[in-house]
Amino acid sequence: MRFFILHGPNLNLLGKREPGIYGSLTLEEINRSIKSLAVELGCEVEFLQSNSEGDLINAIQSAAGVFDGIVINPAAYTHTSIAIRDALAAIGLPFVEVHLSNIHSREDFRHKSLTAPLAAGQISGFGQESYLLGLRAIFTIAKK
Amino acid sequence: MRFFILHGPNLNLLGKREPGIYGSLTLEEINRSIKSLAVELGCEVEFLQSNSEGDLINAIQSAAGVFDGIVINPAAYTHTSIAIRDALAAIGLPFVEVHLSNIHSREDFRHKSLTAPLAAGQISGFGQESYLLGLRAIFTIAKK
Amino acid sequence: MRFFILHGPNLNLLGKREPGIYGSLTLEEINRSIKSLAVELGCEVEFLQSNSEGDLINAIQSAAGVFDGIVINPAAYTHTSIAIRDALAAIGLPFVEVHLSNIHSREDFRHKSLTAPLAAGQISGFGQESYLLGLRAIFTIAKK
Amino acid sequence: MRFFILHGPNLNLLGKREPGIYGSLTLEEINRSIKSLAVELGCEVEFLQSNSEGDLINAIQSAAGVFDGIVINPAAYTHTSIAIRDALAAIGLPFVEVHLSNIHSREDFRHKSLTAPLAAGQISGFGQESYLLGLRAIFTIAKK
Amino acid sequence: MRFFILHGPNLNLLGKREPGIYGSLTLEEINRSIKSLAVELGCEVEFLQSNSEGDLINAIQSAAGVFDGIVINPAAYTHTSIAIRDALAAIGLPFVEVHLSNIHSREDFRHKSLTAPLAAGQISGFGQESYLLGLRAIFTIAKK
Amino acid sequence: MRFFILHGPNLNLLGKREPGIYGSLTLEEINRSIKSLAVELGCEVEFLQSNSEGDLINAIQSAAGVFDGIVINPAAYTHTSIAIRDALAAIGLPFVEVHLSNIHSREDFRHKSLTAPLAAGQISGFGQESYLLGLRAIFTIAKK
Amino acid sequence: MRFFILHGPNLNLLGKREPGIYGSLTLEEINRSIKSLAVELGCEVEFLQSNSEGDLINAIQSAAGVFDGIVINPAAYTHTSIAIRDALAAIGLPFVEVHLSNIHSREDFRHKSLTAPLAAGQISGFGQESYLLGLRAIFTIAKK
Amino acid sequence: MRFFILHGPNLNLLGKREPGIYGSLTLEEINRSIKSLAVELGCEVEFLQSNSEGDLINAIQSAAGVFDGIVINPAAYTHTSIAIRDALAAIGLPFVEVHLSNIHSREDFRHKSLTAPLAAGQISGFGQESYLLGLRAIFTIAKK
Amino acid sequence: MRFFILHGPNLNLLGKREPGIYGSLTLEEINRSIKSLAVELGCEVEFLQSNSEGDLINAIQSAAGVFDGIVINPAAYTHTSIAIRDALAAIGLPFVEVHLSNIHSREDFRHKSLTAPLAAGQISGFGQESYLLGLRAIFTIAKK
Amino acid sequence: MRFFILHGPNLNLLGKREPGIYGSLTLEEINRSIKSLAVELGCEVEFLQSNSEGDLINAIQSAAGVFDGIVINPAAYTHTSIAIRDALAAIGLPFVEVHLSNIHSREDFRHKSLTAPLAAGQISGFGQESYLLGLRAIFTIAKK
Amino acid sequence: MRFFILHGPNLNLLGKREPGIYGSLTLEEINRSIKSLAVELGCEVEFLQSNSEGDLINAIQSAAGVFDGIVINPAAYTHTSIAIRDALAAIGLPFVEVHLSNIHSREDFRHKSLTAPLAAGQISGFGQESYLLGLRAIFTIAKK
Amino acid sequence: MRFFILHGPNLNLLGKREPGIYGSLTLEEINRSIKSLAVELGCEVEFLQSNSEGDLINAIQSAAGVFDGIVINPAAYTHTSIAIRDALAAIGLPFVEVHLSNIHSREDFRHKSLTAPLAAGQISGFGQESYLLGLRAIFTIAKK
Repeated sequence: MRFFILHGPNLNLLGKREPGIYGSLTLEEINRSIKSLAVELGCEVEFLQSNSEGDLINAIQSAAGVFDGIVINPAAYTHTSIAIRDALAAIGLPFVEVHLSNIHSREDFRHKSLTAPLAAGQISGFGQESYLLGLRAIFTIAKK
Repeated sequence: MRFFILHGPNLNLLGKREPGIYGSLTLEEINRSIKSLAVELGCEVEFLQSNSEGDLINAIQSAAGVFDGIVINPAAYTHTSIAIRDALAAIGLPFVEVHLSNIHSREDFRHKSLTAPLAAGQISGFGQESYLLGLRAIFTIAKK
Repeated sequence: MRFFILHGPNLNLLGKREPGIYGSLTLEEINRSIKSLAVELGCEVEFLQSNSEGDLINAIQSAAGVFDGIVINPAAYTHTSIAIRDALAAIGLPFVEVHLSNIHSREDFRHKSLTAPLAAGQISGFGQESYLLGLRAIFTIAKK
Repeated sequence: MRFFILHGPNLNLLGKREPGIYGSLTLEEINRSIKSLAVELGCEVEFLQSNSEGDLINAIQSAAGVFDGIVINPAAYTHTSIAIRDALAAIGLPFVEVHLSNIHSREDFRHKSLTAPLAAGQISGFGQESYLLGLRAIFTIAKK
Repeated sequence: MRFFILHGPNLNLLGKREPGIYGSLTLEEINRSIKSLAVELGCEVEFLQSNSEGDLINAIQSAAGVFDGIVINPAAYTHTSIAIRDALAAIGLPFVEVHLSNIHSREDFRHKSLTAPLAAGQISGFGQESYLLGLRAIFTIAKK
Repeated sequence: MRFFILHGPNLNLLGKREPGIYGSLTLEEINRSIKSLAVELGCEVEFLQSNSEGDLINAIQSAAGVFDGIVINPAAYTHTSIAIRDALAAIGLPFVEVHLSNIHSREDFRHKSLTAPLAAGQISGFGQESYLLGLRAIFTIAKK
Repeated sequence: MRFFILHGPNLNLLGKREPGIYGSLTLEEINRSIKSLAVELGCEVEFLQSNSEGDLINAIQSAAGVFDGIVINPAAYTHTSIAIRDALAAIGLPFVEVHLSNIHSREDFRHKSLTAPLAAGQISGFGQESYLLGLRAIFTIAKK
Repeated sequence: MRFFILHGPNLNLLGKREPGIYGSLTLEEINRSIKSLAVELGCEVEFLQSNSEGDLINAIQSAAGVFDGIVINPAAYTHTSIAIRDALAAIGLPFVEVHLSNIHSREDFRHKSLTAPLAAGQISGFGQESYLLGLRAIFTIAKK
Repeated sequence: MRFFILHGPNLNLLGKREPGIYGSLTLEEINRSIKSLAVELGCEVEFLQSNSEGDLINAIQSAAGVFDGIVINPAAYTHTSIAIRDALAAIGLPFVEVHLSNIHSREDFRHKSLTAPLAAGQISGFGQESYLLGLRAIFTIAKK
Repeated sequence: MRFFILHGPNLNLLGKREPGIYGSLTLEEINRSIKSLAVELGCEVEFLQSNSEGDLINAIQSAAGVFDGIVINPAAYTHTSIAIRDALAAIGLPFVEVHLSNIHSREDFRHKSLTAPLAAGQISGFGQESYLLGLRAIFTIAKK
Repeated sequence: MRFFILHGPNLNLLGKREPGIYGSLTLEEINRSIKSLAVELGCEVEFLQSNSEGDLINAIQSAAGVFDGIVINPAAYTHTSIAIRDALAAIGLPFVEVHLSNIHSREDFRHKSLTAPLAAGQISGFGQESYLLGLRAIFTIAKK
Repeated sequence: MRFFILHGPNLNLLGKREPGIYGSLTLEEINRSIKSLAVELGCEVEFLQSNSEGDLINAIQSAAGVFDGIVINPAAYTHTSIAIRDALAAIGLPFVEVHLSNIHSREDFRHKSLTAPLAAGQISGFGQESYLLGLRAIFTIAKK
């Protein structure tokens, strides 16, 4: 089983900026943890980070037929991108939406997710752990 | 380490009614899975289900000094009970909010959670798995 | 055929207070009229009044497999209780929502019913007669 | 005692179209049932159906001094016609508003009734039975 | 100079119903007062009352090239008829909107007028006097 | 194949008034163009214009079993008539909604169409051409 | 009989600025026309203009027991001053609200009047004529 | 004279949790201060705290005929319980609503009180002092 | 200790107008009661009433360094004056907001206070007593 | 005459995914149909599809001076991209907005188009036919 | 060239109170800096500060024909005064709106400016520098 | 000191299109003016324009550690891009937001800026001058 781990805009800065909100781990360190868990669970993972909405859409489209599911942190695009929502709907793969911070305790415009209604589920607020729980979740779903 | 697993109104009917939305497992079966995971993680769990807002508040209040964290599925009270929110705020224990179904793809009045802004995080949409991920999450938080 | 007649909060005060809005009949007198009509129609009725949301949920849950339908006046909980809505949805019995006063000519917050969308139908504004019409309605539905 | 049974726009199509929503009875069959009940109760009924807002207003105006009450299903005009509301207010006869379908479980724009606040009461969701209950209700009111 | 005095729905009931809101004068008496003032000002007036939106539109359309202006009390259609607004816009005659009662102190849905933004002006709250002031106003405008 | 071309309120004034918004062609000239295209496509068309909501409803109802589809410009009723929407829903014929002007660049209250959600599609902004494109569209749909 | 003519903020600039919206007459010329009409009607008028909300409140308060009614153009304060509304309510004199321009065809924030619900009536859109009609209106009211 | 002092949900935790918001006094200490003031004023007081909406309704109902007034801090139920509002309306005793913290400077959902419109008055923001001022207020009202 | 008692617009009319809403005491009588209580508590009070927003701002600014706290009834300016709010914020003195009537049971536009979020607390609904309770409250606060 | 046919995000997946909503034709097949019609009409067409908002803006900018008009299906960007709107406004070419599905019968967030108010017109709901009608429309416009 | 520098309510307290928000410079010091810049640019400036809306309106009116432009910081009146907006519109001088603090990062009610839509432009957030940039801006505009 | 001047989407068209709104200067000419001012002030500036949200995010991210501040005109992305807001927040450099046109006098959707709350300040409405004032502002801030 193979899963695609997608990181949205500004997540390449993780660990370098605003550790108060996003924690002190770098994206690389998080990816390493995810990889470890993948090994433990017995599945493969691939990673992609982009600041570009179009590139994320291309990546999602390319996942069809290649992966068994997606773990995506759409970051800021969670709240503004109908195009990413449409891409996820189009390929029809199960996906889990994750967020490092608790989006429900931040600004009003972060409370509404355009992608969550189509997700298998949403996990938010646990820092790096959100990704690990997300991988467990998509793994369980894909096994069914 | 000990954690309190709180089930809100109507969750005693799990597995018996509306399996299309909530799955076919009974609350007892879910509790048993949670217990198994607790053993695996090396922690204790206690369970309580109630249909009464007042009883849930009493239970939350009684958790202070006894448990290291709470995993709560406030069900319908998620969206209407400021009193449960206040109880959770008052005792100051870390808690994780979980939902069986994906609340973001249901009726509008289920999109807004009164308790989520105070939670460590929220997990929604994975059926029984939501509880298991929730226990993992609170366990990680309590260990810090 | 057996029907459950459920009275929500403050209806125990009927006939004693605010007759201008709710009429001068006591709840007992109303129940007696309902009983008479039940005899006339050839069905059984049972009654329960409670001021507690949790007790009403318990009562609704207990109706499954015992009654053929419910006539419920959720009173104030009509507008605030998603939990009662969920209980009614869970047991899947047909139910009729009734109101003594015309909720559409009262305060704005009484115009929206959380339970009505799941009801077979809603009857509002006829005082005691609302219950009698409600019993006739649920009787017709259950006969089908 | 005489009552006016008013059917709003498109109700002439009853039984012919969209039976899933409105049932398979024709307007004629419903009128016959109403007539039967009227005989049983000991009162007279007269019927009028129109697709024209102006004609319905004329009909309502003409009811003053002739009828003891009105049972009206304003259909689509329920939600858009202040003019029908004003006509009902002007003649001052008691009236009961009825709906075949449960308007609270349909589109948002059908949830708000312009006429209901002035009605003795509202009955919605019981198909043909809504009219029969409406006749019983107006009969009880007129007897007082 | 000739002016068209248009009365909207339910105004045929004036003086007969709800004198508390609309005064005790009949429409005929009001028309007679308007006629007297027309004689005094030296102009002609013609009257039309209808409960039908379509008839009012027809009447407005027919006014083009025949009258020098319109005094219209659209009554309930003030708040719901874009079609009457469009008719008034299409013929391009100056018109004055009048109301017997003060629409700003009544229900919320009467505060917004669809026709007022296109009117030369609006006069509301003075009973019969609203029409007389309206005639004076349109007379002054037409003289320019 | 036969199609019904329905023109709503004030469209009888086309070409005579407000050419800046609606163009300088009369309704008759537009109908002639439609007829020409019908001949070219090999289908029949019939026309009706009315300023009365009730008459338009009657016309729509009468189309069932007679026509293969409708091209309708509901004009002002687009935004206010649930009754016309209900008539179109009841007869179940495919229909295309057309508008001469671009309703999205006009007043706010013209942005929302009550009939469009039930239409096969909507065409707006091309003057007479809107009708011609509408006929092509309904023709293609009816052929399937 | 004596009436108080109150002019709100910026009306001292009349005739000097923005004639496109407010006409080319100065406030003095308007006052002279009002005086002429007062002589014709057989009543006295007094004038006051102020740019200060406090001064207008003082003036309104001083009118009690001195005047038989007020004609007020609250200008910009129409939409923002609850204090002027309260002053008018407190003294209990009948008053007519007038506006030179048609406030219903201007910016959204000018559509809502805080004082109109307490006025005998409102006249808007006729330039100087609004004041003259207002004086006629208050004169008729005071005579009763 | 006797007054009922009602404490809503979570107030049993006073002095133990969140002293930053609610002060460091326990509910017992506050009750003692209230008792002292009652002695000074020459009246009796009785106390009840509950986390259950139903129990608070029962308590309010039982106050009729026993007490001369109520001082109530509905806490979280202030903003969600129409049922408590209805109970207070039903018994018709004068009551004063008090809050320890200033609800107007907290979260938006605490700005609106469902009970305040029926209260004699509302006192908010003075900690324990809110209760003492509330007792003085109800005492003055009951004396009249 | 010295306190400043500030009365907003139209409060100079107290006792003379609208006794149904504001009671029959004059402002002078209320000030005398406040003075008596001040003597009893052992503090000084000074009074100012103004109908002018600007004068009230000047008065508030002048209170810094002179008084130990303010009791203010901003009346109509409660709901419209950000400038008074800013003045109160700027001087940093503790202040108590009082209202004679219960603002929560009046018009919607009186429910929101711009100054209350910055106040120590708010007291509303007790007539003259609101001021006396307000003085007690500010006295307790200033003593700390 | 040359026209630019622009396809927005995810339209490259046409025919491969979600045929229930978007039909079973591939983008290539649609482009071929458009080309055929172009030949029939006697004009040239060029195609571009992109998932990137920036690329679409670049494409639009490059159309100035090269094409006589644009047929654009902005897909998801219809509802979120002010930047595409600004690009279309900047180049000043006439354009027609087309949609495969009827956006008025889908999710609320698809009802509002940011680009439509600037378009010559909008065509929505006819699948591939929307493009063909759109080409006819822009052709007619460009010919004028 | 001469410019009028207008300071709204509470700006006379600058440097004395809330330096955290508004900086530590007094109004006098700011005026001195503005004067220096005026000398540097080769223009004259005059200053006025007032807490009274009416006085500010008078000042604005008096600027016509005397100054070549205005730099205004309307402070709290920015968000509440239509009367100041009307005065600025009436005199027709170009004006620049400035704010010391960044109004977009403060309370919601400070985000909307009533005067900004009529201004040449708005500058907000730079403390004293806002005025200096404002003077440069109005100078550039007046030179054209 | 070095500053980054960022131009958002469609600004590459400046001077070529819509000079009525954006002026007749090209982006190059504006950049030259900015450079001149930079020389005068004694600082360095670098420029970047992009139509792509992702490229702008990359550019912002790359500015950390390289520049002392940013002057950004996010153009259309001002109102839609949370991702650009997040990038600006992440790097923590002071930035000034500038707009050529006065966004407060344009369409409603341009009134709200997602980036302004995080900016040092916002300057809007002065054409090219907005950039020059913006450079002065960021220069002053960076010097502190």
